[in-house]
Amino acid sequence: MDDLAPSLTRAVFDTVTTHIRDNDLRAGDALPSETAVAAAAGVSRTVVREAFGALSALKLIDVSNGRRARVGFVDGSVLSLPLGHAVDTAQVSVPQVWDARRVLERRTAELAAIRRTKTEARLILDHARALRRAGGDLDVQVEHDIAFHAAIAGATRNPMFPLLIAAFADLMRETCPIGWRSRRTEADRLAVFDQHDRIAEAIEAGDPLAAEAAMDAHFGLSLRALANTGFS
Amino acid sequence: MDDLAPSLTRAVFDTVTTHIRDNDLRAGDALPSETAVAAAAGVSRTVVREAFGALSALKLIDVSNGRRARVGFVDGSVLSLPLGHAVDTAQVSVPQVWDARRVLERRTAELAAIRRTKTEARLILDHARALRRAGGDLDVQVEHDIAFHAAIAGATRNPMFPLLIAAFADLMRETCPIGWRSRRTEADRLAVFDQHDRIAEAIEAGDPLAAEAAMDAHFGLSLRALANTGFS
Repeated sequence: MDDLAPSLTRAVFDTVTTHIRDNDLRAGDALPSETAVAAAAGVSRTVVREAFGALSALKLIDVSNGRRARVGFVDGSVLSLPLGHAVDTAQVSVPQVWDARRVLERRTAELAAIRRTKTEARLILDHARALRRAGGDLDVQVEHDIAFHAAIAGATRNPMFPLLIAAFADLMRETCPIGWRSRRTEADRLAVFDQHDRIAEAIEAGDPLAAEAAMDAHFGLSLRALANTGFS
Repeated sequence: MDDLAPSLTRAVFDTVTTHIRDNDLRAGDALPSETAVAAAAGVSRTVVREAFGALSALKLIDVSNGRRARVGFVDGSVLSLPLGHAVDTAQVSVPQVWDARRVLERRTAELAAIRRTKTEARLILDHARALRRAGGDLDVQVEHDIAFHAAIAGATRNPMFPLLIAAFADLMRETCPIGWRSRRTEADRLAVFDQHDRIAEAIEAGDPLAAEAAMDAHFGLSLRALANTGFS
């Protein structure tokens, strides 16, 4: 918000976030209606609608289906839009985004190897195998790739990681097919599947050092593939 | 946006982001007026105002001072609000946020040691010294602490890092004073200043391994201080 919105809208925006904090509300809890907020703040419904629109764009509140507003669940999509915008408008390049992603995912691989349940280890392996089986169908392949990285982030037991990793999903849909097509030989393509297997196996084996090293090698290869396509 | 907004608002939202992408616009470039967008999309000004409000909440566009809308510059504040919300509503804990921050800042320290200019190295050292001199005045101290970490992120030459690190500034304002007060002895407090000096000196010396190690040690101490205050 900051200087972007008229001050009345900003005041109502702050009233709602303060209400959430002061009442120790949790995601899913009901919020006062637009009418009640308008009356309490002494402003028009239009101003409240604008503030609620900004709050819901940032997922601080949830007003889906025209329901009564509730406290929002955070998810990575709210980070994904500004990130996609930054790339589209050349404020940051894909390799620069991937460099930040790389350190985050080295850590998710390490933590997942320590903390994953057996079910999570199995899910991560399943996505690695589905990725290989999809060979050729890029849409299916990318969705398993995204799910593979999300499953690893989920197995860290730290909700910050799924949140941050989800922010990269849209960019993966855009760049993974391009990176893939840059791999001209069968051996180059198999190397990608092998890397996913190695990460999944290290996580299943409960070997944090091997998992981190395998994830790091995976990003090394991805960044070289992107460089070959002229992303820079 | 997703399912949060009425479909007409969502359609206008998408029209604007597509317009930015298809015309290869850059931050600061002018966008069509609300009137022009309403006419082109065949929708009311109210719908366009709502879409522009959501776009500006996410900083995809900039409509400050009631000016003509322009393509937005991304900044960390758009990530800061959802992150603060997630902490306020117990969707993620401060130590969990700090664990993600730790891996990002180990990398910023490493890259800054490789890529910083002399001016940047000096600025980082200056903030470390100002932090020590502020001793006692927590407001001044926290602002130098935030500026210290931001200056390191800036010296990486990768705009992703300043973007991500800025997202933590509000949380630092909230938690650093609490961590600070948990340090009961003069030696404990001096250790914090010494750590900042060591990071700054390694970056100035162009020693990436030492810079990363010093940053890691800094987070280790911060996390222990937070644990003492009952943050978990």
